[in-house]
Amino acid sequence: MVNVQNTLANINLLEGLSEDIVEALNKQCRWKWFDAQEQIIDRQAESTDVFFIVQGRVRIIIYTVGGKEITLDDFTEGKQFGEMAAIDSLPRSASVMAVERSLLAAMPQSRFMELLTGHPVVAARVLKNMAHIIRISNERIMDLSTLGAANRVHAEILRQARENMVDDDEAFISPMPIHGDIGSRVSSTRETVARVMNDLARKGFVERKKNGLKVTNIAALSQMVEDVRGD
Amino acid sequence: MVNVQNTLANINLLEGLSEDIVEALNKQCRWKWFDAQEQIIDRQAESTDVFFIVQGRVRIIIYTVGGKEITLDDFTEGKQFGEMAAIDSLPRSASVMAVERSLLAAMPQSRFMELLTGHPVVAARVLKNMAHIIRISNERIMDLSTLGAANRVHAEILRQARENMVDDDEAFISPMPIHGDIGSRVSSTRETVARVMNDLARKGFVERKKNGLKVTNIAALSQMVEDVRGD
Repeated sequence: MVNVQNTLANINLLEGLSEDIVEALNKQCRWKWFDAQEQIIDRQAESTDVFFIVQGRVRIIIYTVGGKEITLDDFTEGKQFGEMAAIDSLPRSASVMAVERSLLAAMPQSRFMELLTGHPVVAARVLKNMAHIIRISNERIMDLSTLGAANRVHAEILRQARENMVDDDEAFISPMPIHGDIGSRVSSTRETVARVMNDLARKGFVERKKNGLKVTNIAALSQMVEDVRGD
Repeated sequence: MVNVQNTLANINLLEGLSEDIVEALNKQCRWKWFDAQEQIIDRQAESTDVFFIVQGRVRIIIYTVGGKEITLDDFTEGKQFGEMAAIDSLPRSASVMAVERSLLAAMPQSRFMELLTGHPVVAARVLKNMAHIIRISNERIMDLSTLGAANRVHAEILRQARENMVDDDEAFISPMPIHGDIGSRVSSTRETVARVMNDLARKGFVERKKNGLKVTNIAALSQMVEDVRGD
């Protein structure tokens, strides 16, 4: 971690901007390390900074007063978050927490909006990014509306497997997914996730290894999810 | 309807653009009337036009193969839809159907993207609009994750009431909301909605009138929803 530099050079959104511009932006950000589990944005807070992830991983979460935690997504190095409040000046729509120790650059709203106006290529990327978030949200609304909790767990394991393929029909998800995290992503409980995972293990779809979860028969798992989703 | 003209002059997104520019845009659109219930966009279709609503009302819907219909939102005069496929060139994320007879202007993707690049004020509005959609989606994900079907119906009646206030604590929703439409918006069935509405009528929150639904005790209804939502 000592080697990480305070530079936005590897932020996807800024790709193609000249070194001079990036240098200037570096100086206009506030730089800060956050520890794992540390809160970065509090929902309903009035801050409007945009955050760039130079190192680490953060989680976008909605908390209900009842204490339920709904994970919207995880973002890692090279990505940004917090654009929405910068764009519409409304309170934050979700909370953000560091999952690992993370180095973030906070850019003031006014600077971010100048960046969009001055560089159509950056604006186009922000638009694409938001379109992607809307598409993911629509899928989640569809899954919540049509799938039972067990099917949603299947769909989430399948999603993670597809991001971690090691062979044609096999994936290795490392580190081992945490039941509570999966529950938070699919709006279910840790207990339900544990039950469904045991069932998947019995049927030979998943196998617990020392460093992670081996997922096999991915084509069959995929068919199982599609059959229920009816899509 | 005969008097409606083929002009984008009243489209919110284009407010402030010069008459010359709007005139030019008018000519670059394909203009078409759609009948009530007519399909405008088919989900997964490869078209990338952006549609402006000059007159009428459309409904954004996801259909599952199982035949379930999930309403994402309704849009009326002055609004646009279909930007997402224009922005990311991916298949349509949802279907769109005319709710009433509607006059639409279809703008080709390339022209729409030039408009965003050439007019930062238009790009800023599109960004705000997408941020709004993401916020609405997050609320729906939260409601689907935490509220039961009956509470979601309460929340939807409350939302519609707030858009149609006639007094401090009273609203009149006209025309009468259709149970199937409410069910589609809150991911529930017509039967459940009918049961919940009867219950609300018994408790004095709603009253069926000839031309619409009278909603009273809105503060109490609101409290009821907030208590369960825990927000």
